[in-house]
Amino acid sequence: MIYIGIDVGGMSIKAGAVDAEGNILFKHTCPTGVERGYGAVIRDIAELGIAAVEKSGHSMDEVKAIGIGIPGIMDQRTGIIPFCTNLGWHDVPIIEEMKKYTDVPVFVDNDATVAGLAESVKGVSAGCDSSVFVTLGTGVGGGVVMGGKPFSGSHGVATEIGHMVTVDGGELCTCGKRGCWERYASATALIRDGRRLCAEKPDCALMKAVEGDIMQISAKHVIDLAKAGDEDCAALFENYVHHLAVGLSNLINVYDPEVIVLGGGVSHSGEFLLNAVRAQMPKYVFFKSMPSATIELAQLTNDAGIIGAAMLGR
Amino acid sequence: MIYIGIDVGGMSIKAGAVDAEGNILFKHTCPTGVERGYGAVIRDIAELGIAAVEKSGHSMDEVKAIGIGIPGIMDQRTGIIPFCTNLGWHDVPIIEEMKKYTDVPVFVDNDATVAGLAESVKGVSAGCDSSVFVTLGTGVGGGVVMGGKPFSGSHGVATEIGHMVTVDGGELCTCGKRGCWERYASATALIRDGRRLCAEKPDCALMKAVEGDIMQISAKHVIDLAKAGDEDCAALFENYVHHLAVGLSNLINVYDPEVIVLGGGVSHSGEFLLNAVRAQMPKYVFFKSMPSATIELAQLTNDAGIIGAAMLGR
Repeated sequence: MIYIGIDVGGMSIKAGAVDAEGNILFKHTCPTGVERGYGAVIRDIAELGIAAVEKSGHSMDEVKAIGIGIPGIMDQRTGIIPFCTNLGWHDVPIIEEMKKYTDVPVFVDNDATVAGLAESVKGVSAGCDSSVFVTLGTGVGGGVVMGGKPFSGSHGVATEIGHMVTVDGGELCTCGKRGCWERYASATALIRDGRRLCAEKPDCALMKAVEGDIMQISAKHVIDLAKAGDEDCAALFENYVHHLAVGLSNLINVYDPEVIVLGGGVSHSGEFLLNAVRAQMPKYVFFKSMPSATIELAQLTNDAGIIGAAMLGR
Repeated sequence: MIYIGIDVGGMSIKAGAVDAEGNILFKHTCPTGVERGYGAVIRDIAELGIAAVEKSGHSMDEVKAIGIGIPGIMDQRTGIIPFCTNLGWHDVPIIEEMKKYTDVPVFVDNDATVAGLAESVKGVSAGCDSSVFVTLGTGVGGGVVMGGKPFSGSHGVATEIGHMVTVDGGELCTCGKRGCWERYASATALIRDGRRLCAEKPDCALMKAVEGDIMQISAKHVIDLAKAGDEDCAALFENYVHHLAVGLSNLINVYDPEVIVLGGGVSHSGEFLLNAVRAQMPKYVFFKSMPSATIELAQLTNDAGIIGAAMLGR
């Protein structure tokens, strides 16, 4: 048996035929075309998935399940996507729509959940019973695997780990609360702090790196300068790592997974980030003499969405 | 088949014979006598449990399992209790010790976990697949039930929810970190804030209630005065409820349980607390238009430890 895995993003739809071990047999992509409405996008999802199977040299009779990763949340009980902001979707009956094109069972879950599942099948947490995947991007997303299965809670709202409050009364979040973890542990946090630095210290190295245009500041600018020894950016990075470690220790206190996997844009800073976080963790872990989760970097990058989605139906 | 449930505290050991539905058939108690060392305490645990079965009119042949709730953590892989501060235990091989007295399988877990399991069998969360029990006492403890089973993570350190940081840089915790939730949501937090109030405002109603002795301040004093309309204590209580609600919303963001059950000393303030917390929750819940966990008060009190321990082996 094989599986179809589909990764739906705001810009493109990626679809692949995947075997039971998580190997991609064939993959291709098309633009999402969000403006066409969900009906047309879901038709493309189905057609792209079916075409991937044909091009892999297999037939739909061999497909056990279709899995779809979305940048939003899924209500598993109703088969409806209540929110999917990047796609502009609200109350989209994705399971019902997919039935127009195929009789194969369809599974849908959040993209961070899907990426975490992919890592637990083919990536750094392969073989682990429990893992937490943390995406450090524009926000902070979470993908929790327990007992080898994606965990999304009783109402599908679990693993909103980015909106765990770690600094009560702190920075205002897009969700309306103050002090959500993602205000401190996302790429956006490094960009905000970089801009503040430039406003306070217009002659700093970061300002020079972006040629005076603070709108060009990226998390990578700040991290690269920290790595190169710039004191201002090193201080921002140290503060970032502190907040990241505090939140990760909270995740250990609640989920106690075998592994925490760091993914998303900020994780591309690699060993520099990983070593800094690992060095801070012992300060925050509650039972210091007990083993607890190891912190690792994600291994799968672009293909995680396809592989993880395919594995939803395994 | 029946079960033995044992609740081990710093002062007393309570043991009961319990049926498969969580009904106590017979229960009795003896002093813990911690100073005698773990060997003598565990012998008493076994003997008290076996005697409870006999006095219930049953025989040990009918006992399927013995469950023990301890005020510490259990390493399920080794059968050893690494820490149990109230009993002064460190690396106690409880499973091996129990085997000296019985061949019946023995299960051991944290007392908050056990109390949560009891509520999910016979209490307010009965029949729920997932629940989080939160003890609001000297500290804040957690008991998580998922899929009807106690959840304790990969290394047995999950559900240390009291040491989730919610106010980074805030009050110093006994664990060495700053801003742990239990510094704000425990009875100890209300006592500390009450003492600070009296120091700043020696003519306040709280100071009068304890006749000028701030060491006598209890959480109940503060809550009772808040309930009676005292403005100073109402402000402390409102701040307490804010921090409680922030932490509960964090639990929803990670566990997304069906129910959150409030237990422990502070929960005895009943509907006054419950209504205040429920009123604040909508401010903090991430997906405001989606259903999420209901907040309830624990129903079982003294018997939760026996019932929940017994159900560990069900």
